[in-house]
Amino acid sequence: MTSDFFEQLGKAVGDTNVLTGDAVHADYTHDETLGLGPVVPLTVVLPGSTGEVAEVLCIATEHGVPVVVRGSGTGLSGAARPVAGAILLAFDRMNRIREIDTDNQVAVVEPGVTLEQLNGELAPYGLVYPVSPGEQSASLGGNVGTNAGGMRAVRYGVTRHHVLGLEVVLADGTVMRTGGKFVKSSTGYDLTQLLIGSEGTLAVTTEVIVKLHPRLTETATVLAPFATLPEVTKAVPRIVASGVEPTILEYADALVMSSITKAAGLDLGIPESVQQAALAYLVVVLEQSSVARLDEDVEQLGTLLGDLGALDVYVLPPHAGSSLITARERLFFVTKASGADDIIDAVIPRAAIPDYLAAVAELAASHGAFVSGCGHVGDGNVHLAVFQPDAQARHELNRAIFRTAIEAGGTISGEHGIGTSKMSYFVESADPALLSLMHAIKAAFDPGGILGPGRMPGPADHLETAHS
Amino acid sequence: MTSDFFEQLGKAVGDTNVLTGDAVHADYTHDETLGLGPVVPLTVVLPGSTGEVAEVLCIATEHGVPVVVRGSGTGLSGAARPVAGAILLAFDRMNRIREIDTDNQVAVVEPGVTLEQLNGELAPYGLVYPVSPGEQSASLGGNVGTNAGGMRAVRYGVTRHHVLGLEVVLADGTVMRTGGKFVKSSTGYDLTQLLIGSEGTLAVTTEVIVKLHPRLTETATVLAPFATLPEVTKAVPRIVASGVEPTILEYADALVMSSITKAAGLDLGIPESVQQAALAYLVVVLEQSSVARLDEDVEQLGTLLGDLGALDVYVLPPHAGSSLITARERLFFVTKASGADDIIDAVIPRAAIPDYLAAVAELAASHGAFVSGCGHVGDGNVHLAVFQPDAQARHELNRAIFRTAIEAGGTISGEHGIGTSKMSYFVESADPALLSLMHAIKAAFDPGGILGPGRMPGPADHLETAHS
Repeated sequence: MTSDFFEQLGKAVGDTNVLTGDAVHADYTHDETLGLGPVVPLTVVLPGSTGEVAEVLCIATEHGVPVVVRGSGTGLSGAARPVAGAILLAFDRMNRIREIDTDNQVAVVEPGVTLEQLNGELAPYGLVYPVSPGEQSASLGGNVGTNAGGMRAVRYGVTRHHVLGLEVVLADGTVMRTGGKFVKSSTGYDLTQLLIGSEGTLAVTTEVIVKLHPRLTETATVLAPFATLPEVTKAVPRIVASGVEPTILEYADALVMSSITKAAGLDLGIPESVQQAALAYLVVVLEQSSVARLDEDVEQLGTLLGDLGALDVYVLPPHAGSSLITARERLFFVTKASGADDIIDAVIPRAAIPDYLAAVAELAASHGAFVSGCGHVGDGNVHLAVFQPDAQARHELNRAIFRTAIEAGGTISGEHGIGTSKMSYFVESADPALLSLMHAIKAAFDPGGILGPGRMPGPADHLETAHS
Repeated sequence: MTSDFFEQLGKAVGDTNVLTGDAVHADYTHDETLGLGPVVPLTVVLPGSTGEVAEVLCIATEHGVPVVVRGSGTGLSGAARPVAGAILLAFDRMNRIREIDTDNQVAVVEPGVTLEQLNGELAPYGLVYPVSPGEQSASLGGNVGTNAGGMRAVRYGVTRHHVLGLEVVLADGTVMRTGGKFVKSSTGYDLTQLLIGSEGTLAVTTEVIVKLHPRLTETATVLAPFATLPEVTKAVPRIVASGVEPTILEYADALVMSSITKAAGLDLGIPESVQQAALAYLVVVLEQSSVARLDEDVEQLGTLLGDLGALDVYVLPPHAGSSLITARERLFFVTKASGADDIIDAVIPRAAIPDYLAAVAELAASHGAFVSGCGHVGDGNVHLAVFQPDAQARHELNRAIFRTAIEAGGTISGEHGIGTSKMSYFVESADPALLSLMHAIKAAFDPGGILGPGRMPGPADHLETAHS
């Protein structure tokens, strides 16, 4: 790259915000996806404003240098993984909450604002941004990129249900706004929704307007061990239909439950005999505006769980309840530490989970792998930790699992995204007509193809193959 | 048109389903938009299956004949209004509910299924499709086209929040599926969301997968008269923030309230003295799973309304409550009968309503017009009936009102859509960068430009003007 290029970048964002060589911290070379090694980008650029982002994109376009966008780097699909020779555009400096508007119940934030930061600022107002992927250090910009979900999605939905508007910069440096501080619109194609989940391949997000909710003050965590996994998964549609509106509705197999409680040093007070009989657990968090209502809901849920075959029903003491949820949020790190080689988050129709998990168990056995699971059963979004160190065997197993999910009426990723790690599975399984439209949309937004190289919608040559 | 064209259509859908001349019923020549005269299309085609839709689109593409899509024709923006020389593709025959899946809480329907029909079939299962634009004879296909909203959106959101997947036919006859029976996905660009609200300009919907909700059994309707309109609109953010989660949160000015109660022959038992002092009303419907909870919510809301300055608070007897809501749903017809010349449904940030309405009143006066209002205040989606018979003066007034809404941080339509009636306002106010992307997206889906002629994203020549 010419020195002119770096000079322009330095002028745009300040020399100290253009990192190269040893100044590029190892954190910038990867996200949290298992099995993807570090990549050092050409340079890490830290813009401080929308105008600076626009300038950087103009420079990148002028020099034909690709751009990868990074929030907090907590993603699980390699969407924020750099490419050698690319600019890694990181939003560490654009981390201001621009506005908390209590009358309209919206917040306006820069992309580098973290979930923890936003909810900390919202707490005094009795408001919450309820989307909660496990990692609270995740950024709002990253959440928009991958349409992040998490445990509370069963009640509140995912990122796309809470983003009302965006400010983005197009590849050519044009600054554009979509949506606004209003909760509904029928005015033109909904580009806000198109941009959410596009993983930095269509435009660069510089501001996010999110919808907030009144914070519910009373919480109960209910734990129900079951003798078998199918009993747990069959209970889920009944709980959803009951109307108690769980905020969290998770299952964990016995191995996962034992790992997370052990790692967190948690004793939930479950008798040894029950623990030995339990092959799977359901974790339900209820939230209400008053203690009386919460108690009613807990009782209704307890009765229902008993009817559905739970070995017992435990209402955890508040501290144990929140520790269990925190431990569940840390599961990724436990899984990583235990040597898992991959994590899969296919989503399927809720009622198809029992058959899907049975099929996955068979596939794991036939591929010489071990698969352990837990996940957002309320959404049909099962997370599977795959233990199979051989890359080729793992690839074959993943393919078979994704095929099973798709045949069950589901799709590859419920919330982690496609990124770079699932591109091959995505491209080979997507309808060629859909892929072809995605290519055309990508070309409309980013004709030079500088945003998110090697990411969605995948190589065009494959598409021609698919069509022929 | 050559006889070959009609022969091909007859072969595709059956001769009796290709209507021309006198066989084209007047209903097909318009939707419910005020001020748009009837247009007789070249032919009305009634397909009976997805395959037939695909054949019709192939024929249209081959002959270069444009296609306008029609659901029940209840739209308020002229999106379903035919064009002379075009095929009007009407879904009267594709009105089957393909599946009610209680375990996954989804329904799979053809586009001609009406809201009334769907909710009638769902009732025995204790489920509801909660999106409720006033007109229950509206079709699901039409609702997807305009991203319909309605009174219950304040709690449940709009059409786009309930559509999980689509089957569509592209202009070239390709049948494509998006989404599925799953509530979340991060797998490629979200074309489901892009198609929703695209008013038949990108593809033709042939199947809709919608998310259902448990039906809440207990309902109360609360009516609160206020001395002034600003007091009503200022109360709204407080009610939303209170956590009582109204299912309906509407305001009506004194004129609207008097019109709808009179038209429905309703006596709400409000003393004459209160009626005379009241310039505006708030109507709040609460729904709960039990009588006890409902009573609590009603009490909390009543206290809050008193604190917010309501002249009194009436909990209507059940029959009167549902009659009032039905009367409100029929308001469009009352407005029409009273001689309104147009209806505007701009959406603005909820807290901006008082200033917006004050500005609208001034604009109406300065344009020699009368404007009466009511609407979904919980969403910031005010509906204004404009009385100004002179087309040019009305156009200027509408322009000024839309400009005011946009300056207040809002946009042109909250739920009615752009259709044909608001195209000029849309094109002149939209960001050229946004319009340019919409044009490229339109070209990607429909390169021949046969779908929805004269509709979004507007004429390309205007765009060049805007850019230059």
